[in-house]
Amino acid sequence: MWRDLAPIGRSATSGGYFRQPWRSAEEELRAWFAEQAAARGLALETDAFGNQVAWWRPDPVPGRVATLGVLTGSHLDSVLDGGAYDGPLGVVSALAAIDLLRKRGAQPSRAVGVGVFREEEGSRFGLACLGSRLATGSVEWADVEGLRDRDGVALGDVTDAPDDGAGGILAEVGCFVELHVEQGRALVDLDRPVGLASGIWPHGRYRFDFTGRADHAGTTRMEDRADPMLTYAMTALAANKQARLGGARATFGRIDVAPNGTNAVPSRVTAWLDARAETAELLADLVAAVEKQSTERAGRDGTSVAVTAESVSRAISFSRDLTDQVGAGHDWPVLPTQAGHDAGILAGAGHPSAMLFVRNPTGVSHSPEEHAETADCLAGVEALADALTSLGV
Amino acid sequence: MWRDLAPIGRSATSGGYFRQPWRSAEEELRAWFAEQAAARGLALETDAFGNQVAWWRPDPVPGRVATLGVLTGSHLDSVLDGGAYDGPLGVVSALAAIDLLRKRGAQPSRAVGVGVFREEEGSRFGLACLGSRLATGSVEWADVEGLRDRDGVALGDVTDAPDDGAGGILAEVGCFVELHVEQGRALVDLDRPVGLASGIWPHGRYRFDFTGRADHAGTTRMEDRADPMLTYAMTALAANKQARLGGARATFGRIDVAPNGTNAVPSRVTAWLDARAETAELLADLVAAVEKQSTERAGRDGTSVAVTAESVSRAISFSRDLTDQVGAGHDWPVLPTQAGHDAGILAGAGHPSAMLFVRNPTGVSHSPEEHAETADCLAGVEALADALTSLGV
Repeated sequence: MWRDLAPIGRSATSGGYFRQPWRSAEEELRAWFAEQAAARGLALETDAFGNQVAWWRPDPVPGRVATLGVLTGSHLDSVLDGGAYDGPLGVVSALAAIDLLRKRGAQPSRAVGVGVFREEEGSRFGLACLGSRLATGSVEWADVEGLRDRDGVALGDVTDAPDDGAGGILAEVGCFVELHVEQGRALVDLDRPVGLASGIWPHGRYRFDFTGRADHAGTTRMEDRADPMLTYAMTALAANKQARLGGARATFGRIDVAPNGTNAVPSRVTAWLDARAETAELLADLVAAVEKQSTERAGRDGTSVAVTAESVSRAISFSRDLTDQVGAGHDWPVLPTQAGHDAGILAGAGHPSAMLFVRNPTGVSHSPEEHAETADCLAGVEALADALTSLGV
Repeated sequence: MWRDLAPIGRSATSGGYFRQPWRSAEEELRAWFAEQAAARGLALETDAFGNQVAWWRPDPVPGRVATLGVLTGSHLDSVLDGGAYDGPLGVVSALAAIDLLRKRGAQPSRAVGVGVFREEEGSRFGLACLGSRLATGSVEWADVEGLRDRDGVALGDVTDAPDDGAGGILAEVGCFVELHVEQGRALVDLDRPVGLASGIWPHGRYRFDFTGRADHAGTTRMEDRADPMLTYAMTALAANKQARLGGARATFGRIDVAPNGTNAVPSRVTAWLDARAETAELLADLVAAVEKQSTERAGRDGTSVAVTAESVSRAISFSRDLTDQVGAGHDWPVLPTQAGHDAGILAGAGHPSAMLFVRNPTGVSHSPEEHAETADCLAGVEALADALTSLGV
């Protein structure tokens, strides 16, 4: 299966993947998924938004009400210039786990679905886990249909809302187990190929608008300036230091400058802070400390800064019961994660959820350098097959 | 005359001017200039590039070889969202100075030309003083005809080279006196409406390429990152501090980040340093000091930095003799400037040149806030008329 996927949406220069939803690479991956489902005789369901679930259902037993199914799978879209494993590893491993269960001679007594949630990365319309948020009703269509991509195209112009009658595409889902490549180095440090997730750190995106005064870069004396770039630069360093001190994460990875001319002192710098911490309180403290230092510096620079929380996600604890069942018979380490996942959205919406991680030797993610060894991927497939068995499939 | 010009190319939202060459606002200004020249009986010459000179010539004296003329004037184009005075003040003042000389009953014994150089700001094709560079032969047409604007249109597709046979449009020019609104606060601080320029500081544009490693903004521990944004941020602060310490100028006003995503540690940050100092040596020291601090920080961040000088302009000293003649009978202060001008190009190409500055109460330039009081503008006209008289007009 990896051989089929390797070239799709790959940049010849960076080796990274560009698989934004409703663009050709991602559409090709969805068509590939439909073919894989058909080849295995799985029943494919798709909602109007494009979330997919391919079901392997038990033969109906007359007089018995079917138990709700186990959903696994992940997503196929990528960040801009992302790695090969973030998302697709969960989908491919789910299909391979079904192959393995069948090879072991399993007859499912409970349905297994392989899910593909759309726009998980938010790389096109800016809101991560959009497919699972819509499918669970965590966001309303009316609140997101106006989101625009960088070309100004509205979400509502490329797709419809998922039909949410009678639970929509998740109507048959009893619980969700998502397998994902690890995005840090915890399993490397522990020397273990597979782990379980305990929960997801709370995290948020905060827009910092720094305002100063446009000026000539040559003739304006340094002491006469109100340069918002300086306030931004100090804020970026302060965020880094604050996160280091608190064992948290803080990143300024996106910036927009006006007029962005070489010989002009900028009039405005807009920059986005991605911040994450172990608890909601620590996260709030982190952001408040950065904002305080930024405001103080703005006072010295003659600029101003306004901070807007664009999105804040609360902490997610995965179901302890489900995680115990998934890990039954194994001593996989249980780790927190700092990344958002569809499993976090489902957990937050009341669907018991759990996650399996597969070791990433580079620890690098959202980058072409993201990696997983074949042996570890196979260990992941076996772990997922065992987990499905433990869950009564 | 100001009333005619005020609405042309003005933005209704910012109040700033958008007068890019070979676009309608600038073409309208050129037509207005031709009308003004005709109304005064001046002989208009235009080269194929669009540089214009309107001559007021003395009646020929049989048997006497005419002295070369005095060129004055400036430019009519603007930066994006620029002020009303940068450029037009020099052209309007030149026409008004001719009116004033005529009112005083002057009969020119030496020709006076009012020049309008095209694309002085480089706002469309990126190379400042393009008209005067071509007219003086400081750049070759073959090296610039391929320059493209932000829409991808090539310079060679909108205009021809100026015909440079027999000195081209500058054939009759003996010296150049450019009047310009001041772009800083020196005259404000000195409480004087008019000043002279001693020279133009050397200045340069340097591209800093910061390279790190793309990573997930949530899962990657702070200590495992190689974040080029941090190296950039420290470099921007270092450049500011270094310029303050040395009485120089250093600005990072333009930045480009990859992948520029909120949840991604960047792989690359490219930023442009605009640096200017009193001497070439001080400029080199300034840039070297910034580069050294940047490289040291890159070592700590696990990133790398490469510095490329994209353009460096040497210092220009205006003709001392000409400046003394222009200022004869006045005690105008003599100031250096940190901005490039057509007068600098002509001086560098061997045409004796001088500059007059008119006070700008805001000190702000390349911005809608740029300003000059009417009384100061009139003082500028009088100063220019006196200067032309001193030069034997």
